[in-house]
Amino acid sequence: MATLLHLDSSVFPGPASASRAVTDAFRKTWEEQHPQGTVIYRDLAAEPVPHITADAHTAGFAAPDAHTPEQAAAFAERVQLIEELERADAILIGAPMYNFAIPSTLKAWLDNVVLIGRTAMTEESKVKGTPVTVVASRGGSYAPGTPREPYEYVQNYLTAILADTLALDLHFIVPELTMAPHNPAMSELVPLFEASRTQALDAAAAKAKEVTERLAA
Amino acid sequence: MATLLHLDSSVFPGPASASRAVTDAFRKTWEEQHPQGTVIYRDLAAEPVPHITADAHTAGFAAPDAHTPEQAAAFAERVQLIEELERADAILIGAPMYNFAIPSTLKAWLDNVVLIGRTAMTEESKVKGTPVTVVASRGGSYAPGTPREPYEYVQNYLTAILADTLALDLHFIVPELTMAPHNPAMSELVPLFEASRTQALDAAAAKAKEVTERLAA
Repeated sequence: MATLLHLDSSVFPGPASASRAVTDAFRKTWEEQHPQGTVIYRDLAAEPVPHITADAHTAGFAAPDAHTPEQAAAFAERVQLIEELERADAILIGAPMYNFAIPSTLKAWLDNVVLIGRTAMTEESKVKGTPVTVVASRGGSYAPGTPREPYEYVQNYLTAILADTLALDLHFIVPELTMAPHNPAMSELVPLFEASRTQALDAAAAKAKEVTERLAA
Repeated sequence: MATLLHLDSSVFPGPASASRAVTDAFRKTWEEQHPQGTVIYRDLAAEPVPHITADAHTAGFAAPDAHTPEQAAAFAERVQLIEELERADAILIGAPMYNFAIPSTLKAWLDNVVLIGRTAMTEESKVKGTPVTVVASRGGSYAPGTPREPYEYVQNYLTAILADTLALDLHFIVPELTMAPHNPAMSELVPLFEASRTQALDAAAAKAKEVTERLAA
């Protein structure tokens, strides 16, 4: 009875979103393998979680019975997000690149779930080791050796947070050049875009199977 | 009659916020030099601007008379933020580090104001060359040579966006070790924190004067 936590953060709904098309492919394969399983889904673009606040932040470092009513209310929302993360046997995140970095809605979610002493910087973390698959789509290419490589602030930042801070078992799938079909200046790159998309869809299905097998082992 | 655009994004109100204490110092000096000037102020933590949406994004690339009502409404909010930026003779941003990166509220503002063909990637940008002072406060030290240097995703990211993308004239003031007075494990670092704070407050006042002199020249 495995639980998947699935987050999307593209502003575009449906398969018009390159990241959602690939998270959908992962999820469909996952659901085939786990017909009795649970999927916790959050569309961070359609229903953003709150930005972190002073009350939500300070509540994380105070004893619950010392919380003010404002801290208690803010922390309850935060704990709900943390519990979803803790319940997950696997995590799937759609993380398109906007202005070289993750969407503000995904940063808001991260600021809520990173809590020192519970999900971070503690051996007792219930989330450490959980496999997380991040679909890091982007309009251009920021691959090693490309001119835009220095502007890649999605994979390197999410490695710092998801792998180094939350100690998750992190894997990226990177559909790139997603602007090619929409930008005449990129028309020569359409075949590369299409190859990248096909590769990403295949990788998503394969990763869902691999994570399933690992959980069963 | 100079105009300053002043943004804060710390979740903590008042001078308890390390970044607000330093943006305040800049602003006070600025106001002394510009008694008839205008300050446009946004507290992004207290009153967050909307996350970018599909309507607000796509509206930026469509002729206004082709906008749907939803696009028109979303774009109007975006244009207001862009016009504030365009009106500014100088910009001041409080950008504390949360989980190694800028607050989600500041990313939401950036996603609204970066618009290709208006504020970015065009010679006709009205914002290029505007001096921007960023107060990049952080709880520890991420200075070159420190163990945490690889986790510095505030200055390098804001350089990519504010300098390389918006072509602003970017200057950082970096109050560091701000957690030292609050974390017993950092007690030995309190004198370094205090020196960093004093240096930042002095630098803020000096920078406000220097920007003023440059605008007058």
